[in-house]
Amino acid sequence: MELRRVVKNSFKVRDPDFEGRVRENFEQQRVMQLIGAKLGAVEPGVVEIAVPFRDDLTQQDGYIHAGIVTTILDSACGYAAYTLMPAGSSVLSVEFKVNLLAPAKGTTIRARAEVKRAGRTLTVCSADAWADDSLCATMLATMICR
Amino acid sequence: MELRRVVKNSFKVRDPDFEGRVRENFEQQRVMQLIGAKLGAVEPGVVEIAVPFRDDLTQQDGYIHAGIVTTILDSACGYAAYTLMPAGSSVLSVEFKVNLLAPAKGTTIRARAEVKRAGRTLTVCSADAWADDSLCATMLATMICR
Amino acid sequence: MELRRVVKNSFKVRDPDFEGRVRENFEQQRVMQLIGAKLGAVEPGVVEIAVPFRDDLTQQDGYIHAGIVTTILDSACGYAAYTLMPAGSSVLSVEFKVNLLAPAKGTTIRARAEVKRAGRTLTVCSADAWADDSLCATMLATMICR
Amino acid sequence: MELRRVVKNSFKVRDPDFEGRVRENFEQQRVMQLIGAKLGAVEPGVVEIAVPFRDDLTQQDGYIHAGIVTTILDSACGYAAYTLMPAGSSVLSVEFKVNLLAPAKGTTIRARAEVKRAGRTLTVCSADAWADDSLCATMLATMICR
Repeated sequence: MELRRVVKNSFKVRDPDFEGRVRENFEQQRVMQLIGAKLGAVEPGVVEIAVPFRDDLTQQDGYIHAGIVTTILDSACGYAAYTLMPAGSSVLSVEFKVNLLAPAKGTTIRARAEVKRAGRTLTVCSADAWADDSLCATMLATMICR
Repeated sequence: MELRRVVKNSFKVRDPDFEGRVRENFEQQRVMQLIGAKLGAVEPGVVEIAVPFRDDLTQQDGYIHAGIVTTILDSACGYAAYTLMPAGSSVLSVEFKVNLLAPAKGTTIRARAEVKRAGRTLTVCSADAWADDSLCATMLATMICR
Repeated sequence: MELRRVVKNSFKVRDPDFEGRVRENFEQQRVMQLIGAKLGAVEPGVVEIAVPFRDDLTQQDGYIHAGIVTTILDSACGYAAYTLMPAGSSVLSVEFKVNLLAPAKGTTIRARAEVKRAGRTLTVCSADAWADDSLCATMLATMICR
Repeated sequence: MELRRVVKNSFKVRDPDFEGRVRENFEQQRVMQLIGAKLGAVEPGVVEIAVPFRDDLTQQDGYIHAGIVTTILDSACGYAAYTLMPAGSSVLSVEFKVNLLAPAKGTTIRARAEVKRAGRTLTVCSADAWADDSLCATMLATMICR
Protein backbone atom coordinates (compact mmCIF):
# COMPACT_ATOMS: atom_id res chain seq x y z
CA MET A 1 0.00 0.00 0.00
CA GLU A 2 1.59 3.22 -1.08
CA LEU A 3 1.12 6.58 0.53
CA ARG A 4 -1.95 8.39 -0.69
CA ARG A 5 -1.79 12.13 -1.00
CA VAL A 6 -4.73 14.49 -0.96
CA VAL A 7 -5.20 15.65 -4.51
CA LYS A 8 -6.66 19.12 -4.41
CA ASN A 9 -9.94 19.34 -6.20
CA SER A 10 -10.13 22.01 -8.82
CA PHE A 11 -13.37 23.54 -7.71
CA LYS A 12 -15.98 24.57 -10.21
CA VAL A 13 -17.18 28.13 -9.69
CA ARG A 14 -20.83 28.56 -10.62
CA ASP A 15 -21.06 32.30 -10.00
CA PRO A 16 -18.30 34.47 -11.50
CA ASP A 17 -19.11 37.18 -8.93
CA PHE A 18 -18.53 34.81 -5.99
CA GLU A 19 -16.06 37.18 -4.35
CA GLY A 20 -18.35 40.20 -4.45
CA ARG A 21 -21.19 38.07 -3.12
CA VAL A 22 -19.07 36.82 -0.21
CA ARG A 23 -17.72 40.26 0.67
CA GLU A 24 -21.18 41.82 0.59
CA ASN A 25 -22.54 39.05 2.81
CA PHE A 26 -19.67 39.44 5.28
CA GLU A 27 -20.58 43.10 5.70
CA GLN A 28 -24.00 41.95 6.90
CA GLN A 29 -22.55 39.83 9.71
CA ARG A 30 -22.77 42.52 12.35
CA VAL A 31 -20.97 40.41 14.93
CA MET A 32 -17.83 40.71 12.81
CA GLN A 33 -17.77 44.44 13.47
CA LEU A 34 -18.33 43.87 17.19
CA ILE A 35 -15.28 41.62 17.46
CA GLY A 36 -13.19 43.54 14.92
CA ALA A 37 -12.89 40.69 12.40
CA LYS A 38 -11.72 41.38 8.85
CA LEU A 39 -12.24 39.34 5.72
CA GLY A 40 -9.00 38.37 3.96
CA ALA A 41 -8.52 36.14 0.92
CA VAL A 42 -11.61 35.02 -0.98
CA GLU A 43 -10.76 32.38 -3.58
CA PRO A 44 -12.70 29.44 -5.02
CA GLY A 45 -13.17 27.13 -2.06
CA VAL A 46 -10.91 29.14 0.26
CA VAL A 47 -11.65 32.02 2.65
CA GLU A 48 -9.64 33.70 5.38
CA ILE A 49 -10.82 35.82 8.30
CA ALA A 50 -8.68 37.47 10.97
CA VAL A 51 -9.44 39.03 14.32
CA PRO A 52 -6.97 41.15 16.28
CA PHE A 53 -6.26 40.32 19.91
CA ARG A 54 -8.43 42.44 22.19
CA ASP A 55 -8.82 42.18 25.95
CA ASP A 56 -12.59 42.24 25.68
CA LEU A 57 -12.57 38.98 23.70
CA THR A 58 -10.81 36.93 26.37
CA GLN A 59 -11.65 34.07 28.71
CA GLN A 60 -10.42 33.70 32.29
CA ASP A 61 -6.75 33.15 31.42
CA GLY A 62 -6.45 36.14 29.11
CA TYR A 63 -6.64 34.10 25.88
CA ILE A 64 -9.17 34.70 23.13
CA HIS A 65 -12.31 32.75 24.06
CA ALA A 66 -12.79 29.51 22.09
CA GLY A 67 -16.21 30.81 21.04
CA ILE A 68 -14.65 33.82 19.33
CA VAL A 69 -12.10 31.63 17.56
CA THR A 70 -15.06 29.48 16.54
CA THR A 71 -16.91 32.55 15.26
CA ILE A 72 -14.24 33.31 12.66
CA LEU A 73 -13.63 29.61 11.87
CA ASP A 74 -17.34 29.08 11.29
CA SER A 75 -17.73 32.14 9.08
CA ALA A 76 -14.58 31.23 7.14
CA CYS A 77 -16.01 27.75 6.50
CA GLY A 78 -19.40 29.15 5.56
CA TYR A 79 -17.90 31.59 3.08
CA ALA A 80 -15.47 29.03 1.65
CA ALA A 81 -18.53 26.90 0.87
CA TYR A 82 -20.43 29.97 -0.36
CA THR A 83 -17.76 30.77 -2.98
CA LEU A 84 -18.86 27.59 -4.81
CA MET A 85 -22.62 28.06 -4.44
CA PRO A 86 -24.77 29.56 -7.20
CA ALA A 87 -25.87 33.19 -7.35
CA GLY A 88 -29.01 33.79 -5.35
CA SER A 89 -28.29 31.03 -2.84
CA SER A 90 -27.78 31.40 0.89
CA VAL A 91 -25.56 29.41 3.23
CA LEU A 92 -26.14 28.15 6.77
CA SER A 93 -24.05 26.11 9.22
CA VAL A 94 -25.37 22.61 9.85
CA GLU A 95 -22.73 21.59 12.39
CA PHE A 96 -19.07 21.95 13.21
CA LYS A 97 -16.45 20.43 15.46
CA VAL A 98 -13.51 22.33 16.87
CA ASN A 99 -10.35 21.05 18.52
CA LEU A 100 -8.49 23.63 20.60
CA LEU A 101 -4.79 22.98 20.10
CA ALA A 102 -2.99 25.84 21.85
CA PRO A 103 -3.84 29.07 23.67
CA ALA A 104 -5.23 31.77 21.37
CA LYS A 105 -2.85 34.54 22.37
CA GLY A 106 -0.62 36.98 20.51
CA THR A 107 -1.55 39.87 18.26
CA THR A 108 -3.83 38.31 15.62
CA ILE A 109 -5.93 35.16 15.23
CA ARG A 110 -6.25 34.05 11.61
CA ALA A 111 -8.68 31.44 10.30
CA ARG A 112 -8.27 29.78 6.92
CA ALA A 113 -11.02 27.51 5.59
CA GLU A 114 -10.96 25.18 2.61
CA VAL A 115 -13.74 23.21 1.01
CA LYS A 116 -13.14 19.51 1.42
CA ARG A 117 -16.10 18.33 -0.63
CA ALA A 118 -18.70 20.48 -2.34
CA GLY A 119 -22.12 18.93 -2.92
CA ARG A 120 -25.29 20.39 -4.32
CA THR A 121 -26.90 20.62 -0.89
CA LEU A 122 -24.14 19.96 1.66
CA THR A 123 -20.54 21.17 1.60
CA VAL A 124 -17.87 19.96 4.02
CA CYS A 125 -15.03 22.32 4.95
CA SER A 126 -11.97 22.14 7.12
CA ALA A 127 -10.32 25.15 8.70
CA ASP A 128 -7.32 25.98 10.83
CA ALA A 129 -6.75 28.96 13.10
CA TRP A 130 -3.37 30.40 13.99
CA ALA A 131 -2.49 32.65 16.90
CA ASP A 132 0.28 34.56 15.12
CA ASP A 133 2.45 31.65 13.93
CA SER A 134 1.06 28.99 16.24
CA LEU A 135 -1.70 26.61 15.13
CA CYS A 136 -4.32 27.11 17.85
CA ALA A 137 -7.52 25.43 16.61
CA THR A 138 -8.95 23.33 13.81
CA MET A 139 -12.54 22.90 12.59
CA LEU A 140 -14.39 20.35 10.50
CA ALA A 141 -17.77 21.72 9.40
CA THR A 142 -20.86 21.00 7.31
CA MET A 143 -22.61 23.83 5.47
CA ILE A 144 -25.97 23.74 3.68
CA CYS A 145 -27.03 25.63 0.56
CA ARG A 146 -30.56 27.03 0.66
CA MET B 1 -33.93 -6.02 24.98
CA GLU B 2 -35.71 -3.53 27.13
CA LEU B 3 -35.45 0.23 26.89
CA ARG B 4 -32.48 1.61 28.75
CA ARG B 5 -32.88 4.93 30.46
CA VAL B 6 -30.09 7.31 31.32
CA VAL B 7 -29.68 7.10 35.07
CA LYS B 8 -28.49 10.45 36.30
CA ASN B 9 -25.18 10.18 38.06
CA SER B 10 -25.11 11.67 41.51
CA PHE B 11 -22.02 13.78 41.07
CA LYS B 12 -19.46 13.98 43.81
CA VAL B 13 -18.55 17.57 44.66
CA ARG B 14 -14.91 17.88 45.75
CA ASP B 15 -14.97 21.58 46.55
CA PRO B 16 -17.87 22.85 48.72
CA ASP B 17 -17.30 26.35 47.35
CA PHE B 18 -17.72 25.23 43.73
CA GLU B 19 -20.39 27.85 43.06
CA GLY B 20 -18.32 30.76 44.30
CA ARG B 21 -15.36 29.49 42.32
CA VAL B 22 -17.42 29.27 39.12
CA ARG B 23 -19.04 32.68 39.57
CA GLU B 24 -15.70 34.35 40.27
CA ASN B 25 -14.16 32.70 37.19
CA PHE B 26 -17.08 33.78 35.02
CA GLU B 27 -16.45 37.39 36.01
CA GLN B 28 -12.98 37.03 34.51
CA GLN B 29 -14.30 36.00 31.09
CA ARG B 30 -14.32 39.48 29.65
CA VAL B 31 -15.98 38.36 26.45
CA MET B 32 -19.10 37.62 28.48
CA GLN B 33 -19.44 41.31 29.25
CA LEU B 34 -18.89 42.21 25.61
CA ILE B 35 -21.78 40.03 24.48
CA GLY B 36 -23.96 40.69 27.53
CA ALA B 37 -24.03 37.11 28.80
CA LYS B 38 -25.20 36.32 32.32
CA LEU B 39 -24.49 33.30 34.47
CA GLY B 40 -27.63 31.52 35.69
CA ALA B 41 -27.92 28.31 37.69
CA VAL B 42 -24.72 26.77 39.05
CA GLU B 43 -25.33 23.31 40.47
CA PRO B 44 -23.17 20.20 40.76
CA GLY B 45 -22.56 19.19 37.15
CA VAL B 46 -25.01 21.75 35.73
CA VAL B 47 -24.51 25.35 34.59
CA GLU B 48 -26.68 27.79 32.66
CA ILE B 49 -25.68 30.92 30.75
CA ALA B 50 -27.98 33.29 28.85
CA VAL B 51 -27.37 36.03 26.34
CA PRO B 52 -30.01 38.55 25.28
CA PHE B 53 -30.69 39.07 21.60
CA ARG B 54 -28.74 42.05 20.30
CA ASP B 55 -28.39 43.26 16.72
CA ASP B 56 -24.62 43.47 17.04
CA LEU B 57 -24.38 39.72 17.68
CA THR B 58 -26.03 38.69 14.42
CA GLN B 59 -25.03 36.99 11.19
CA GLN B 60 -26.27 37.88 7.71
CA ASP B 61 -29.89 36.80 8.25
CA GLY B 62 -30.36 38.67 11.52
CA TYR B 63 -29.98 35.59 13.75
CA ILE B 64 -27.45 35.32 16.56
CA HIS B 65 -24.20 34.06 15.01
CA ALA B 66 -23.46 30.38 15.63
CA GLY B 67 -20.13 31.43 17.13
CA ILE B 68 -21.87 33.46 19.82
CA VAL B 69 -24.24 30.60 20.61
CA THR B 70 -21.12 28.43 20.80
CA THR B 71 -19.48 30.94 23.15
CA ILE B 72 -22.16 30.46 25.81
CA LEU B 73 -22.49 26.71 25.16
CA ASP B 74 -18.74 26.27 25.56
CA SER B 75 -18.54 28.30 28.76
CA ALA B 76 -21.59 26.52 30.17
CA CYS B 77 -19.90 23.15 29.48
CA GLY B 78 -16.61 24.34 30.92
CA TYR B 79 -18.24 25.58 34.11
CA ALA B 80 -20.46 22.49 34.46
CA ALA B 81 -17.24 20.45 34.42
CA TYR B 82 -15.57 22.96 36.73
CA THR B 83 -18.25 22.53 39.44
CA LEU B 84 -16.89 19.00 39.95
CA MET B 85 -13.19 19.84 39.84
CA PRO B 86 -11.12 20.36 42.98
CA ALA B 87 -10.28 23.74 44.49
CA GLY B 88 -7.21 25.27 42.90
CA SER B 89 -7.76 23.60 39.54
CA SER B 90 -8.37 25.28 36.21
CA VAL B 91 -10.47 24.15 33.27
CA LEU B 92 -9.85 24.33 29.52
CA SER B 93 -11.81 23.22 26.46
CA VAL B 94 -10.27 20.31 24.58
CA GLU B 95 -12.86 20.13 21.82
CA PHE B 96 -16.55 20.49 21.13
CA LYS B 97 -19.07 19.74 18.45
CA VAL B 98 -22.16 21.83 17.80
CA ASN B 99 -25.25 21.04 15.75
CA LEU B 100 -27.31 24.06 14.76
CA LEU B 101 -30.95 23.02 14.93
CA ALA B 102 -32.97 26.19 14.35
CA PRO B 103 -32.38 29.92 13.87
CA ALA B 104 -31.16 31.66 17.04
CA LYS B 105 -33.73 34.42 17.11
CA GLY B 106 -36.11 35.82 19.72
CA THR B 107 -35.35 37.73 22.90
CA THR B 108 -32.95 35.46 24.79
CA ILE B 109 -30.61 32.56 24.01
CA ARG B 110 -30.14 30.20 26.95
CA ALA B 111 -27.53 27.47 27.23
CA ARG B 112 -27.76 24.64 29.75
CA ALA B 113 -24.84 22.25 30.16
CA GLU B 114 -24.70 18.98 32.06
CA VAL B 115 -21.78 16.75 32.86
CA LYS B 116 -22.12 13.43 31.09
CA ARG B 117 -19.05 11.79 32.60
CA ALA B 118 -16.58 13.33 35.03
CA GLY B 119 -13.07 11.92 35.02
CA ARG B 120 -9.98 12.96 36.91
CA THR B 121 -8.43 14.57 33.84
CA LEU B 122 -11.17 14.73 31.19
CA THR B 123 -14.85 15.56 31.64
CA VAL B 124 -17.47 15.16 28.91
CA CYS B 125 -20.47 17.50 28.89
CA SER B 126 -23.55 17.91 26.75
CA ALA B 127 -25.42 21.17 26.40
CA ASP B 128 -28.50 22.52 24.68
CA ALA B 129 -29.33 26.09 23.67
CA TRP B 130 -32.81 27.53 23.34
CA ALA B 131 -33.89 30.61 21.48
CA ASP B 132 -36.75 31.50 23.80
CA ASP B 133 -38.70 28.22 23.80
CA SER B 134 -37.15 26.72 20.69
CA LEU B 135 -34.22 24.30 20.85
CA CYS B 136 -31.67 25.96 18.55
CA ALA B 137 -28.34 24.18 19.12
CA THR B 138 -26.73 21.29 20.94
CA MET B 139 -23.11 20.69 21.98
CA LEU B 140 -21.04 17.67 22.99
CA ALA B 141 -17.77 18.79 24.57
CA THR B 142 -14.60 17.56 26.28
CA MET B 143 -13.02 19.61 29.06
CA ILE B 144 -9.66 19.11 30.74
CA CYS B 145 -8.69 19.77 34.35
CA ARG B 146 -5.28 21.34 34.86
CA MET C 1 -33.10 32.57 35.03
CA GLU C 2 -34.82 29.34 35.92
CA LEU C 3 -33.70 25.88 34.97
CA ARG C 4 -34.84 24.86 31.50
CA ARG C 5 -35.77 21.27 30.97
CA VAL C 6 -35.75 19.44 27.66
CA VAL C 7 -39.37 18.98 26.69
CA LYS C 8 -39.64 15.79 24.67
CA ASN C 9 -41.03 16.41 21.23
CA SER C 10 -43.99 14.29 20.35
CA PHE C 11 -42.74 13.11 17.01
CA LYS C 12 -45.05 12.95 14.04
CA VAL C 13 -44.95 9.57 12.33
CA ARG C 14 -45.51 9.87 8.57
CA ASP C 15 -45.45 6.18 7.77
CA PRO C 16 -47.59 3.89 9.98
CA ASP C 17 -45.40 0.94 8.95
CA PHE C 18 -42.22 2.63 10.17
CA GLU C 19 -41.27 -0.33 12.34
CA GLY C 20 -41.56 -2.90 9.56
CA ARG C 21 -39.59 -0.61 7.26
CA VAL C 22 -36.79 -0.23 9.83
CA ARG C 23 -36.64 -3.95 10.63
CA GLU C 24 -36.54 -4.91 6.96
CA ASN C 25 -33.77 -2.40 6.30
CA PHE C 26 -31.76 -3.64 9.28
CA GLU C 27 -31.82 -7.15 7.79
CA GLN C 28 -30.05 -5.70 4.74
CA GLN C 29 -27.14 -4.34 6.79
CA ARG C 30 -24.95 -7.39 6.34
CA VAL C 31 -22.29 -6.06 8.69
CA MET C 32 -24.79 -6.48 11.53
CA GLN C 33 -24.74 -10.23 11.00
CA LEU C 34 -20.95 -10.23 10.89
CA ILE C 35 -20.67 -8.59 14.30
CA GLY C 36 -23.73 -10.32 15.78
CA ALA C 37 -25.77 -7.16 16.34
CA LYS C 38 -29.50 -7.38 17.06
CA LEU C 39 -32.18 -4.77 16.62
CA GLY C 40 -34.12 -4.02 19.81
CA ALA C 41 -36.82 -1.41 20.41
CA VAL C 42 -38.13 0.51 17.38
CA GLU C 43 -40.37 3.39 18.44
CA PRO C 44 -41.10 6.79 16.91
CA GLY C 45 -37.78 8.60 17.12
CA VAL C 46 -36.09 5.89 19.20
CA VAL C 47 -34.12 2.79 18.19
CA GLU C 48 -31.94 0.36 20.12
CA ILE C 49 -29.27 -2.03 18.85
CA ALA C 50 -27.16 -4.43 20.92
CA VAL C 51 -24.03 -6.43 20.20
CA PRO C 52 -22.74 -9.22 22.43
CA PHE C 53 -19.14 -9.15 23.58
CA ARG C 54 -16.99 -11.28 21.30
CA ASP C 55 -13.21 -11.63 21.30
CA ASP C 56 -13.03 -11.04 17.57
CA LEU C 57 -14.47 -7.53 17.97
CA THR C 58 -11.75 -6.28 20.29
CA GLN C 59 -8.90 -3.80 20.18
CA GLN C 60 -5.48 -4.24 21.76
CA ASP C 61 -6.66 -4.14 25.39
CA GLY C 62 -9.44 -6.68 24.94
CA TYR C 63 -12.26 -4.10 24.84
CA ILE C 64 -14.76 -3.81 22.00
CA HIS C 65 -13.16 -1.57 19.35
CA ALA C 66 -14.52 1.98 19.26
CA GLY C 67 -15.35 1.45 15.59
CA ILE C 68 -17.69 -1.42 16.44
CA VAL C 69 -19.38 0.62 19.16
CA THR C 70 -19.69 3.36 16.54
CA THR C 71 -21.20 0.88 14.08
CA ILE C 72 -24.19 0.19 16.32
CA LEU C 73 -24.45 3.82 17.51
CA ASP C 74 -24.51 5.02 13.89
CA SER C 75 -27.11 2.49 12.78
CA ALA C 76 -29.24 3.23 15.85
CA CYS C 77 -29.15 6.95 15.00
CA GLY C 78 -29.89 6.27 11.35
CA TYR C 79 -32.88 4.10 12.17
CA ALA C 80 -34.17 6.47 14.87
CA ALA C 81 -34.22 9.15 12.16
CA TYR C 82 -35.69 6.68 9.66
CA THR C 83 -38.71 5.95 11.90
CA LEU C 84 -39.87 9.51 11.21
CA MET C 85 -39.15 9.58 7.49
CA PRO C 86 -41.82 8.93 4.86
CA ALA C 87 -42.41 5.60 3.14
CA GLY C 88 -40.18 5.15 0.13
CA SER C 89 -37.36 7.28 1.54
CA SER C 90 -33.83 6.21 2.32
CA VAL C 91 -31.49 7.40 5.07
CA LEU C 92 -27.75 8.10 5.03
CA SER C 93 -25.28 9.32 7.66
CA VAL C 94 -23.94 12.82 7.04
CA GLU C 95 -21.61 12.95 10.03
CA PHE C 96 -21.30 11.90 13.63
CA LYS C 97 -19.15 12.57 16.66
CA VAL C 98 -18.41 10.02 19.33
CA ASN C 99 -16.97 10.47 22.81
CA LEU C 100 -15.56 7.31 24.37
CA LEU C 101 -16.38 7.43 28.07
CA ALA C 102 -15.34 4.06 29.48
CA PRO C 103 -13.96 0.72 28.26
CA ALA C 104 -16.47 -1.28 26.22
CA LYS C 105 -16.22 -4.52 28.16
CA GLY C 106 -18.68 -6.91 29.77
CA THR C 107 -21.25 -9.16 28.13
CA THR C 108 -23.31 -6.82 25.94
CA ILE C 109 -22.94 -3.38 24.40
CA ARG C 110 -26.27 -1.61 23.95
CA ALA C 111 -26.86 1.54 21.90
CA ARG C 112 -29.96 3.68 22.26
CA ALA C 113 -30.57 6.56 19.85
CA GLU C 114 -33.15 9.33 20.05
CA VAL C 115 -34.09 11.97 17.53
CA LYS C 116 -33.16 15.40 18.80
CA ARG C 117 -34.64 17.35 15.91
CA ALA C 118 -36.36 15.98 12.83
CA GLY C 119 -36.27 18.11 9.70
CA ARG C 120 -37.51 17.43 6.22
CA THR C 121 -33.99 16.87 4.90
CA LEU C 122 -31.71 16.63 7.95
CA THR C 123 -32.38 14.90 11.26
CA VAL C 124 -30.13 15.24 14.32
CA CYS C 125 -29.92 12.34 16.76
CA SER C 126 -28.12 11.66 20.00
CA ALA C 127 -27.25 8.19 21.23
CA ASP C 128 -25.64 6.54 24.22
CA ALA C 129 -23.95 3.15 24.48
CA TRP C 130 -23.70 1.06 27.61
CA ALA C 131 -21.32 -1.77 28.36
CA ASP C 132 -23.71 -3.75 30.56
CA ASP C 133 -24.68 -1.04 33.10
CA SER C 134 -21.82 1.35 32.41
CA LEU C 135 -22.20 4.30 30.02
CA CYS C 136 -19.30 3.74 27.60
CA ALA C 137 -19.87 6.08 24.65
CA THR C 138 -22.10 8.86 23.36
CA MET C 139 -22.82 10.05 19.81
CA LEU C 140 -24.25 13.20 18.24
CA ALA C 141 -25.15 12.57 14.59
CA THR C 142 -26.71 14.12 11.50
CA MET C 143 -28.75 11.97 9.11
CA ILE C 144 -30.11 12.90 5.68
CA CYS C 145 -33.34 11.76 4.03
CA ARG C 146 -33.07 10.92 0.33
CA MET D 1 -3.59 39.47 5.06
CA GLU D 2 -1.64 36.94 3.08
CA LEU D 3 -2.51 33.31 2.64
CA ARG D 4 -1.25 31.13 5.46
CA ARG D 5 -0.10 27.65 4.62
CA VAL D 6 0.05 24.70 6.96
CA VAL D 7 3.69 24.16 7.73
CA LYS D 8 4.20 20.49 8.44
CA ASN D 9 5.61 19.91 11.87
CA SER D 10 8.75 17.84 11.97
CA PHE D 11 7.66 15.41 14.64
CA LYS D 12 10.00 14.32 17.38
CA VAL D 13 10.16 10.56 17.72
CA ARG D 14 10.76 9.49 21.33
CA ASP D 15 10.98 5.75 20.68
CA PRO D 16 13.24 4.61 17.82
CA ASP D 17 11.29 1.34 17.64
CA PHE D 18 7.98 3.14 17.09
CA GLU D 19 7.21 1.13 13.97
CA GLY D 20 7.72 -2.26 15.59
CA ARG D 21 5.63 -1.14 18.56
CA VAL D 22 2.78 -0.03 16.28
CA ARG D 23 2.86 -3.17 14.14
CA GLU D 24 2.88 -5.43 17.19
CA ASN D 25 -0.05 -3.56 18.71
CA PHE D 26 -2.01 -3.75 15.45
CA GLU D 27 -1.70 -7.53 15.54
CA GLN D 28 -3.50 -7.45 18.89
CA GLN D 29 -6.54 -5.65 17.47
CA ARG D 30 -8.50 -8.78 16.70
CA VAL D 31 -11.27 -6.86 14.98
CA MET D 32 -8.79 -6.03 12.21
CA GLN D 33 -8.57 -9.70 11.31
CA LEU D 34 -12.36 -10.01 11.38
CA ILE D 35 -12.78 -7.23 8.81
CA GLY D 36 -9.64 -8.08 6.83
CA ALA D 37 -7.83 -4.79 7.51
CA LYS D 38 -4.11 -4.48 6.80
CA LEU D 39 -1.61 -2.03 8.22
CA GLY D 40 0.25 -0.02 5.57
CA ALA D 41 2.74 2.79 6.02
CA VAL D 42 3.95 3.55 9.56
CA GLU D 43 5.97 6.77 9.66
CA PRO D 44 6.48 9.40 12.36
CA GLY D 45 3.03 10.93 12.81
CA VAL D 46 1.50 9.06 9.85
CA VAL D 47 -0.23 5.68 9.60
CA GLU D 48 -2.25 4.00 6.88
CA ILE D 49 -4.74 1.13 7.14
CA ALA D 50 -6.70 -0.47 4.30
CA VAL D 51 -9.66 -2.80 4.20
CA PRO D 52 -10.79 -4.64 1.07
CA PHE D 53 -14.41 -4.42 -0.02
CA ARG D 54 -16.38 -7.39 1.27
CA ASP D 55 -20.11 -7.99 1.08
CA ASP D 56 -20.28 -8.84 4.77
CA LEU D 57 -19.10 -5.33 5.72
CA THR D 58 -21.93 -3.50 3.99
CA GLN D 59 -24.94 -1.45 4.99
CA GLN D 60 -28.34 -1.52 3.30
CA ASP D 61 -27.22 0.02 -0.02
CA GLY D 62 -24.27 -2.30 -0.50
CA TYR D 63 -21.65 0.25 0.58
CA ILE D 64 -19.13 -0.37 3.37
CA HIS D 65 -20.83 0.61 6.64
CA ALA D 66 -19.73 3.97 8.08
CA GLY D 67 -18.82 2.16 11.28
CA ILE D 68 -16.30 -0.02 9.47
CA VAL D 69 -14.80 3.00 7.71
CA THR D 70 -14.64 4.58 11.16
CA THR D 71 -12.91 1.49 12.55
CA ILE D 72 -9.92 1.89 10.23
CA LEU D 73 -9.92 5.70 10.50
CA ASP D 74 -9.91 5.47 14.30
CA SER D 75 -7.11 2.91 14.42
CA ALA D 76 -5.09 4.87 11.88
CA CYS D 77 -5.43 7.99 14.05
CA GLY D 78 -4.60 6.07 17.20
CA TYR D 79 -1.47 4.57 15.67
CA ALA D 80 -0.39 7.85 14.06
CA ALA D 81 -0.48 9.34 17.57
CA TYR D 82 1.19 6.23 18.98
CA THR D 83 4.23 6.60 16.67
CA LEU D 84 5.14 9.73 18.67
CA MET D 85 4.45 8.36 22.15
CA PRO D 86 7.20 6.96 24.36
CA ALA D 87 8.05 3.29 24.73
CA GLY D 88 5.89 1.59 27.33
CA SER D 89 2.94 3.90 26.79
CA SER D 90 -0.52 2.95 25.62
CA VAL D 91 -2.98 4.90 23.48
CA LEU D 92 -6.76 5.26 23.73
CA SER D 93 -9.35 7.19 21.70
CA VAL D 94 -10.91 10.10 23.57
CA GLU D 95 -13.29 11.16 20.81
CA PHE D 96 -13.60 11.50 17.06
CA LYS D 97 -15.80 13.10 14.48
CA VAL D 98 -16.40 11.69 11.03
CA ASN D 99 -17.93 13.30 7.95
CA LEU D 100 -19.13 10.86 5.31
CA LEU D 101 -18.38 12.41 1.94
CA ALA D 102 -19.22 9.76 -0.65
CA PRO D 103 -20.33 6.12 -0.76
CA ALA D 104 -17.65 3.67 0.42
CA LYS D 105 -17.72 1.38 -2.59
CA GLY D 106 -15.09 -0.06 -4.93
CA THR D 107 -12.37 -2.59 -4.23
CA THR D 108 -10.42 -1.10 -1.30
CA ILE D 109 -11.02 1.49 1.42
CA ARG D 110 -7.81 3.20 2.53
CA ALA D 111 -7.42 5.39 5.61
CA ARG D 112 -4.48 7.72 6.10
CA ALA D 113 -4.04 9.54 9.42
CA GLU D 114 -1.67 12.35 10.30
CA VAL D 115 -0.89 13.92 13.63
CA LYS D 116 -2.06 17.51 13.72
CA ARG D 117 -0.69 18.36 17.14
CA ALA D 118 1.16 16.07 19.51
CA GLY D 119 0.95 16.88 23.21
CA ARG D 120 2.28 15.05 26.23
CA THR D 121 -1.16 13.78 27.18
CA LEU D 122 -3.46 14.53 24.24
CA THR D 123 -2.71 14.20 20.53
CA VAL D 124 -5.01 15.49 17.78
CA CYS D 125 -5.06 13.69 14.43
CA SER D 126 -6.85 14.14 11.14
CA ALA D 127 -7.49 11.33 8.70
CA ASP D 128 -9.02 10.79 5.29
CA ALA D 129 -10.47 7.64 3.78
CA TRP D 130 -10.61 6.86 0.08
CA ALA D 131 -12.81 4.35 -1.68
CA ASP D 132 -10.34 3.52 -4.44
CA ASP D 133 -9.58 7.02 -5.78
CA SER D 134 -12.59 8.78 -4.27
CA LEU D 135 -12.39 10.64 -0.97
CA CYS D 136 -15.20 9.03 1.03
CA ALA D 137 -14.76 10.14 4.66
CA THR D 138 -12.70 12.37 6.91
CA MET D 139 -12.03 12.21 10.65
CA LEU D 140 -10.80 14.63 13.30
CA ALA D 141 -9.82 12.77 16.47
CA THR D 142 -8.31 13.16 19.94
CA MET D 143 -6.09 10.43 21.37
CA ILE D 144 -4.76 10.11 24.92
CA CYS D 145 -1.43 8.68 26.07
CA ARG D 146 -1.61 6.52 29.20
